Amino acid sequence: MMTRWRAGILIFDDVEVLDFAGPYEVLSRARTEPGVASRRSDEHAPFQVFTVARSREPVRAVGGLQVIPDHGFADAPAIDLLVVPGGFGTRTLLDDAEVCGWIGRTAAAARMVASVCTGSLLLAKVGLLRGKRATTHWGALELLGSIDPTIRVEQGGRFVDDGVLTSAGISAGIDLALALVERVAGKPAADETAHYMEYRR
Amino acid sequence: MMTRWRAGILIFDDVEVLDFAGPYEVLSRARTEPGVASRRSDEHAPFQVFTVARSREPVRAVGGLQVIPDHGFADAPAIDLLVVPGGFGTRTLLDDAEVCGWIGRTAAAARMVASVCTGSLLLAKVGLLRGKRATTHWGALELLGSIDPTIRVEQGGRFVDDGVLTSAGISAGIDLALALVERVAGKPAADETAHYMEYRR
Repeated sequence: MMTRWRAGILIFDDVEVLDFAGPYEVLSRARTEPGVASRRSDEHAPFQVFTVARSREPVRAVGGLQVIPDHGFADAPAIDLLVVPGGFGTRTLLDDAEVCGWIGRTAAAARMVASVCTGSLLLAKVGLLRGKRATTHWGALELLGSIDPTIRVEQGGRFVDDGVLTSAGISAGIDLALALVERVAGKPAADETAHYMEYRR
Repeated sequence: MMTRWRAGILIFDDVEVLDFAGPYEVLSRARTEPGVASRRSDEHAPFQVFTVARSREPVRAVGGLQVIPDHGFADAPAIDLLVVPGGFGTRTLLDDAEVCGWIGRTAAAARMVASVCTGSLLLAKVGLLRGKRATTHWGALELLGSIDPTIRVEQGGRFVDDGVLTSAGISAGIDLALALVERVAGKPAADETAHYMEYRR
């Protein structure tokens, strides 16, 4: 029985659906034992995945999808892997001391921190990308650099790993999550999870 | 102002997250006007997307994600495009007269019907794939043929279009949804939506 990483995915109003659902799918379906049957239990699951929001009140994602967070900030368990997705909702959160404070404290205690799409704007705001290479959605590259001019903003790849991992836009979060599986559970597990999902890395 | 297609996505307990979230993302973010700004309103949106379940009680997807359906069967609006996702939950629904009955009636009234992954098992059960070419997740190809032996089960592609559209596993639902955008709003809109999502078709 392995010790599972607790993967906390932040959600908020106007979070982009695939930004959180892509990593949720990958991390919750990853297994160290191949095949369909291993997905029927958590025995070979390297991650325990849950959503976290400011409170447990339902969140309305971009497009209107309604999600009930598993935890609010007040009752969230310790988080080993913090995933911060993007979406229009990130813009108002840039000035939200409660959410930024939570991200900063949670990241400091986590073993690994990753963002999808414009989630990197929040990591930048909190200072987590200072002096680092990082990326974001193609529509927000300039904004990322303006939040923290010490960031070396990159583009063209699916994700950037400079200690903190940041992905390009929306669907690139799937590739980022598969890379996280690879780090925690090895390349065979990541490749087999992609195969299970019929995703071409 | 175009007339938007009403796209109803069925959800249920143990629906696979990316099976419904991939098409939700694609269909709700599709625009006939390119760029980031056009996503800030619904003015150029070819689809109005919503989730439908047996009732409006929260649904727990595979992995535990909690989603509140926008509509129950009793209060769902007319549906132009019906999307039936897959997941372990489809197995129990094969014997669920209420859900199968709703799928059959809704499909009969819809302009277009599509399934993702093992959602095709439900379409097969209802008789919607009789004599047609169709596909499903690689782990369920035999099961699909056993539900209705008149189906010509195909594998290897991302989706099959034989009047009713059926996709391969999980992530292939993104490709299927982009094909639906292409049919309803044209190839430039589908290509630009893929670009917005940073998805390589």
